Amino acid sequence: MIGTFKTIVRKLELNKNLIEDVLDEVAIETPVKIYVNEKFYATLMAIPNQLQELAIGFLIGDGLIKNINEIKKVEIKDLNVKIELKTEKNFISPKKTILTACTSSEEFLNQILKFEEPIVESNYAIKAFKIFEMIEECIKKAEVYKATGGTHFAGVFQNEELKAFSEDVGRHNAVDKAIGVAALKNVDFQKTVLVSSGRQPADMILKAARAGIPILASMRAPLMSGVNAARILGITLIGFARKSRMNIYSFPERILI
Amino acid sequence: MIGTFKTIVRKLELNKNLIEDVLDEVAIETPVKIYVNEKFYATLMAIPNQLQELAIGFLIGDGLIKNINEIKKVEIKDLNVKIELKTEKNFISPKKTILTACTSSEEFLNQILKFEEPIVESNYAIKAFKIFEMIEECIKKAEVYKATGGTHFAGVFQNEELKAFSEDVGRHNAVDKAIGVAALKNVDFQKTVLVSSGRQPADMILKAARAGIPILASMRAPLMSGVNAARILGITLIGFARKSRMNIYSFPERILI
Repeated sequence: MIGTFKTIVRKLELNKNLIEDVLDEVAIETPVKIYVNEKFYATLMAIPNQLQELAIGFLIGDGLIKNINEIKKVEIKDLNVKIELKTEKNFISPKKTILTACTSSEEFLNQILKFEEPIVESNYAIKAFKIFEMIEECIKKAEVYKATGGTHFAGVFQNEELKAFSEDVGRHNAVDKAIGVAALKNVDFQKTVLVSSGRQPADMILKAARAGIPILASMRAPLMSGVNAARILGITLIGFARKSRMNIYSFPERILI
Repeated sequence: MIGTFKTIVRKLELNKNLIEDVLDEVAIETPVKIYVNEKFYATLMAIPNQLQELAIGFLIGDGLIKNINEIKKVEIKDLNVKIELKTEKNFISPKKTILTACTSSEEFLNQILKFEEPIVESNYAIKAFKIFEMIEECIKKAEVYKATGGTHFAGVFQNEELKAFSEDVGRHNAVDKAIGVAALKNVDFQKTVLVSSGRQPADMILKAARAGIPILASMRAPLMSGVNAARILGITLIGFARKSRMNIYSFPERILI
């Protein structure tokens, strides 16, 4: 099961009154359980690949750990990821199941409002046309999306170079995985751009902020909570980025013309 | 706050090196709390309109009630919807927060596997071209989507006539609202098509099944869990429906050429 992105499904394809019985590919999502220090932490509904990265990125984005230096050991058994930290952590267990495409909740919004000043203070800046190139590079790499039409992707670029790329049924999972991959490569998040294929509510911005990513560029729309969160957390939020067009909702000084 | 779909946000619009400082519209999501018989039931992150319909559709899709005849009274105060049922119901409270775009969880999958035979047994059938017309009718009506680019829609058609239409930041909320609107109009769900703008995991199919809807047509992709659920629950699942093309993943006998 691990590593299975998609599966074959039979379908009838109707095209202008022509019907064909064909085989097609559909994305798979499976419950992945994360344990921290032997305690159940969360269940994510995710494409069962990059499980270590998913768990690490999720813990960083969830604010439980700051970076991989806090991790002692990762053990993967079936679809369970067991993470042993160097120190004890207090958290409420069991946490809720985290679902296919989102974790935007009141709890997250409340957490954001607790911050009194921007937490991402990086001066990193890049040329606007680089953002378009990054989006295009990610689209080219999105193989599961091309096969199934049903997935999201995320990429982390450090100094304009793609360091991490992931796909998943959920835009949140894809971001978790990409952050996890980048963390394992010791990427300096202060000089990164996170590219996402999905909409941006507050909790997505919070994931980026907790990793320390200054620029988040999406092909899709922000939600109001996302714009507010980006403005509070010091993140340059870009939406509808495609071809030669983008909207900048916050901290435009990081985008050079 | 109630009835507010979207809000104005300032952004920089970059288009081929031309920058404009403009005002734009962004979708708002707000926590909506549902109480059943004075007990807290769930928090949905939703666009704060059609609150009664959202709550009723959510309870039907969640399997707590079968139809509106079980409801004694609905009271809306600020963003709280208090539903009084005619009978006592046992449920675990507080339920988890239901998030922006999804509720696909292990719990749901397990619930589906409990069913031994299809629960939707309607013989309702419609011509394929009607599905394309329904999708186009919904797209035309999707005003919040057109303004913000960040929302989903859902429509319920009874005997090929649009009876309920809703938009929300989450595809699940949009479906809940549309089912709620249709339920309040006493729509005969056995003769309906549910149109959705979103991807289809198992829990979306389960919402349709619990309402008794035989045909679910989406513009977007199904997930594998959605295809499995539709085949188990007796629902005709259509994906990638647009213009004159669609894929039929289950029970194609309801679609006539």
